[in-house]
Amino acid sequence: MEFINNPREIEEGSFAIITEELGDRTFPEEIAPIVKRIIHSTADFEYADLLEFLNGGYECGMAALKQGKKIYADTRMIQVGVNKKALADHQIEIVNYSHDADVAEEAKKRGVTRSTVAIEKAIKDDSVGIFAIGNAPTALYTLIEKVKAGEAKPDLIIGAAIGFVGAAQSKKALDQIDSPIIRINGRKGGSPVVAAILNAMLYQLGREW
Amino acid sequence: MEFINNPREIEEGSFAIITEELGDRTFPEEIAPIVKRIIHSTADFEYADLLEFLNGGYECGMAALKQGKKIYADTRMIQVGVNKKALADHQIEIVNYSHDADVAEEAKKRGVTRSTVAIEKAIKDDSVGIFAIGNAPTALYTLIEKVKAGEAKPDLIIGAAIGFVGAAQSKKALDQIDSPIIRINGRKGGSPVVAAILNAMLYQLGREW
Repeated sequence: MEFINNPREIEEGSFAIITEELGDRTFPEEIAPIVKRIIHSTADFEYADLLEFLNGGYECGMAALKQGKKIYADTRMIQVGVNKKALADHQIEIVNYSHDADVAEEAKKRGVTRSTVAIEKAIKDDSVGIFAIGNAPTALYTLIEKVKAGEAKPDLIIGAAIGFVGAAQSKKALDQIDSPIIRINGRKGGSPVVAAILNAMLYQLGREW
Repeated sequence: MEFINNPREIEEGSFAIITEELGDRTFPEEIAPIVKRIIHSTADFEYADLLEFLNGGYECGMAALKQGKKIYADTRMIQVGVNKKALADHQIEIVNYSHDADVAEEAKKRGVTRSTVAIEKAIKDDSVGIFAIGNAPTALYTLIEKVKAGEAKPDLIIGAAIGFVGAAQSKKALDQIDSPIIRINGRKGGSPVVAAILNAMLYQLGREW
């Protein structure tokens, strides 16, 4: 069987097809790579319509990455989906607390999700600049409450919670705060989408491999 | 802000909405939980039409899980996306080799993807029964070649490679072999879809938590 087996060739080929199929749809120069990488990760062109930037989400997010701010991810899938080399090149750490034993215990005791307790833990860490939510509406709601209370001041919130109970609403609720935001409207989103957004932004800092 | 913050309630609510929106679309009793869990993970109802079972994929996959066969996943996202408790309950290990140093080195030398070299490594391990491919068409093509050559005899292949270069074709190429298969037709697929399939099957073995 003949098939393309060169990784760089596969990626370039994919982006060429995506660009072609987007057709007349164009995006600002710095946004296009983010849109395309999400589509590359999902094979779903609907994301071109669902992606939204609020309150300087792109600019503030890039600034936070340049400063080496820590990223909190609400899932391990995001954590492993973000390019290790890109993180290392820019000395950026990506953390997730939702599987920590103390988090699980407290969540059970309070009858709330682990995601809620985990993001509370992340908010207490001043070195976290970016909050990347690909799964739990409850994490997003908790973060919004903390921002309103003046207890959190994120450099960027990536709101891409996915699902049928609360996901769309939790992302809509981001309208209530002035934080820099990148969000996926509606029910869709998820860890690969968040990882794609972060990778696209990291690659704009320079990608030498 | 009022929001649902009980994990079990969120999951049950989601599945109720999915069932309602599937409407007249019904599936065999053992297949329905797989379809619904994929939709739960992607918020994308198109998967109800893309999921396909060939050559006893469901039955042979369940048998392999009952026997505690090892799962090879082509991405770390699948590895972390499959429920740890479910794996532990049934003493099933899930492995991924695509980030191993020896794999990276050999891939570079041969000018092929790490996914190709990684799956070759997995095929050499007789305890691997299930090959779960959520990313790389090259992994799937390599596996198909090895099956044809009589060098691999998988209990189940999950073919959910995603993307624009070779993904749909690689899954179509599964028609050439008689192995038990669960596949996602077309361009779509990905790690969350594979994790959803595996979780749905594992939960059918019993879920006491």
